[in-house]
Amino acid sequence: MALAENTPQKTIERLSAYLRALQELSLEGKIFASSTDIGRKSGISAELVRKDMSAFGCPGRRGLGYNADRLADAIREILGVDRRWKVALVGFGMLGQSLIRYKGFADSGFDITAVFEIDKVLVGNDFEGIPIHAAEDMPDVCERDTILLAIVAVPADRAFEAFQQCLDAGIRGILNFTDQTGFTPPPHAKILNVNIAAEMEALSYFLVHN
Amino acid sequence: MALAENTPQKTIERLSAYLRALQELSLEGKIFASSTDIGRKSGISAELVRKDMSAFGCPGRRGLGYNADRLADAIREILGVDRRWKVALVGFGMLGQSLIRYKGFADSGFDITAVFEIDKVLVGNDFEGIPIHAAEDMPDVCERDTILLAIVAVPADRAFEAFQQCLDAGIRGILNFTDQTGFTPPPHAKILNVNIAAEMEALSYFLVHN
Repeated sequence: MALAENTPQKTIERLSAYLRALQELSLEGKIFASSTDIGRKSGISAELVRKDMSAFGCPGRRGLGYNADRLADAIREILGVDRRWKVALVGFGMLGQSLIRYKGFADSGFDITAVFEIDKVLVGNDFEGIPIHAAEDMPDVCERDTILLAIVAVPADRAFEAFQQCLDAGIRGILNFTDQTGFTPPPHAKILNVNIAAEMEALSYFLVHN
Repeated sequence: MALAENTPQKTIERLSAYLRALQELSLEGKIFASSTDIGRKSGISAELVRKDMSAFGCPGRRGLGYNADRLADAIREILGVDRRWKVALVGFGMLGQSLIRYKGFADSGFDITAVFEIDKVLVGNDFEGIPIHAAEDMPDVCERDTILLAIVAVPADRAFEAFQQCLDAGIRGILNFTDQTGFTPPPHAKILNVNIAAEMEALSYFLVHN
C-alpha cells in the first residue's frame, strides 16, 4: 500500500473519514465491511470508496468486502497515526482549554503534553495534568520531549509571533486556530488553518442558493 | 455575477479566502488589488484567482486589477453574508463557551443569539448577554427569532438527538463540532463537520511522507 507524496488534501481527508467509518463498523461487530457500508458511514459514494481503496492497493474481496480492522490498520499507517504524537498547545485561553479537554485528539493518537503561554501568572501551573511552560522555553521542551506538532490558539495579533516560535522550536506541523492565514511556512513545515467562520459562510451560501 | 447551484465546496472555500484577503488588502489601504495580491494573501495561485474571478463574472481591469471593496461586496453577496445571520448554539460546555467568545463569527456576520441546553441548572441564565434556553424551547425560540443556522457542540452520544432537535426547530444549516459524522440530513438542510482530529491526521501524514 503506497501513496504518492503529493496526495491531494481531499484524498487525505477521505482517508480520515474511512478510518472513522471502519472504527465504527468494527465497534458494531462487523469483521468485513463493504464499500457501501464504508460509504454510508463516511458520507462518500461506494464507487469512490472502491476507487480509493484500489488506488491504495487495497482491493476488497468480491462478496466479502474489506477486512475492517486490517484496512483500518493500513490507513493508520498511511496517515502516520499507527503511533502516538506529542503535541504542544500555544496559548492557554478559553479555546486552548477546551482543546485540551477535546477527547477526539487523544482518540486519534494525538496527546497534548505541553502548554506554552506568555502570561507569567499562568506559567508553572498544570491544567488537567499538563504543565504550562513559558513561551521562551518552547525550544528546550520540544526538543527534550520530541514534540513536532503544535496547535496555535493565541489572539490573532500574536499569531505570527507564535508561528515563528513554533518553527524555532523545531515544530513541523501547525494546526492554526487563529484568523491569520497569510503566514508562509518553510518547505519542511506545514500549517493547516481551521477556519470555522469560513465553514459558516459555506452554510449561508447553501441557504441562499437552495 | 452568478454561480451554479452545485458549486463545489472547494470553490466556496476559495471565495471565503478571497473575501478575507480583500478585507486585509482594503485595511492596508489598497483600492485596487491584483490577482497576485489576492493570491499571496489567500495562499492561492494568481492564475486560479483570475480563473475564479472570470468564472464569477468579475474580470479585473488590465494593469489595475480588481476594485477591492467592490469585489468583496460581490463575494459577500454570493456567500450570503451581505446580511447578518442569527445562530443557535446547542450545548453549553467548554467548547460552546469558547465559540461564543470567538470573535470570528461576528466579524463574518454570524451572531450567536440563543444557547440551548438540557442541564436545567444552566437554563434561564445568560452568558455574555446570550440567554440559555431549555432544549425543548428550541422550535419556539428559533421561529420567533428567525434562526436558521445552528452550531452543535454537545457530547458525541447526544449528537443525533441534537441534530434532530435542530431540524425539528426549522434549522437548515448545522455546523457540527461533535465526532458524529454519520447523520444524513434531509435535502433542504446541510450539516458541515468540523473535524479537528482529521486535520491533525493531515499534519501527521505530511510529517511521515516528507
